[in-house]
Amino acid sequence: MQSADAPRRMWFRTQVERNIRVLRLGQRYVRDDRTLTHLCLVSRALGAEAIYLQDVEKDIPNTVEEVNATWGGDFRVVIDPSWQKVIREAKAEGRKVVHLTMYGVPLQDRLRELRAEKKLLVVVGGPKVPGRVYHEADYNIAVTSQPHSEIAALAIVLHEIQSGEELKRDFGKSVLRIVPTEKGKRVIRN
Amino acid sequence: MQSADAPRRMWFRTQVERNIRVLRLGQRYVRDDRTLTHLCLVSRALGAEAIYLQDVEKDIPNTVEEVNATWGGDFRVVIDPSWQKVIREAKAEGRKVVHLTMYGVPLQDRLRELRAEKKLLVVVGGPKVPGRVYHEADYNIAVTSQPHSEIAALAIVLHEIQSGEELKRDFGKSVLRIVPTEKGKRVIRN
Repeated sequence: MQSADAPRRMWFRTQVERNIRVLRLGQRYVRDDRTLTHLCLVSRALGAEAIYLQDVEKDIPNTVEEVNATWGGDFRVVIDPSWQKVIREAKAEGRKVVHLTMYGVPLQDRLRELRAEKKLLVVVGGPKVPGRVYHEADYNIAVTSQPHSEIAALAIVLHEIQSGEELKRDFGKSVLRIVPTEKGKRVIRN
Repeated sequence: MQSADAPRRMWFRTQVERNIRVLRLGQRYVRDDRTLTHLCLVSRALGAEAIYLQDVEKDIPNTVEEVNATWGGDFRVVIDPSWQKVIREAKAEGRKVVHLTMYGVPLQDRLRELRAEKKLLVVVGGPKVPGRVYHEADYNIAVTSQPHSEIAALAIVLHEIQSGEELKRDFGKSVLRIVPTEKGKRVIRN
């Protein structure tokens, strides 16, 4: 699925400055802080700039702040109870809205278009996504048509849109830094 | 990161019959059924054959059985309290052990070797992974050196090892089947 557009990807590597934000829907109905924490940290680690949450306990923004302080970067958690407003403002600034749903079009069939977009809002639903979201999204994208995990779907979509380049990202100034190693753990304190 | 070996991947597509199993460590210390359910369903949706869990509530195997019955396939949940035994038996049948850890070698630096392996056991740790696991693994693999989510790391590793081919997998006979669509939901009852 990725081989056909390899030259195109090479081009993007130097030409496209991409900006990705994530919106998580549905927290009001299902309180699930562990999943939310995973979604925040995956968004951060895989190159998104910010995540919008509708309503959370205080400790999630604090957890993310601590991760930034220890491991670098300036990923942001934004609390905004109105997903409608977040989507409206994203569209107003030319951001394409990519809603992840097992009912959507297979990721591999829209990858070329998605990689060409510079500004994206990736919408991750909970179990109660309003029908309007499907219609307001520019893309409804499926990572398989099987039930699994919004955390996994988000990870694969962020990874594919950025052609794996996000894995090499430098998080800048940090207190701790891992030195990759074959066996065991090596951590440097800066 | 994927473009260099595109011809090789084409070759694998027809030549390698891959078999991947997943082992989740650490359930005894941290009870976290939601994360476990995600790990099971991600393993299933992204082409693994089975997941080994050390110790779970009854409802996780049941949940997976219901998903199989509704959506197809024969993914298995195996409860085995001894991870040592699972790893030993995997090695005895020539399976390579891939331990996912933020301290390991970047995925993109071992992808070529990993794609060449026919039988894999992917080990997903919790917070308390014993040091021995790092030494018994054939590969310690990092999906970024940043803290995020074992669900996301597992998803990206399964996806990359199979070169995205797992997204096209057919789950065979099922009660329900999704027809991918641009807007909304289309589900067929077989």
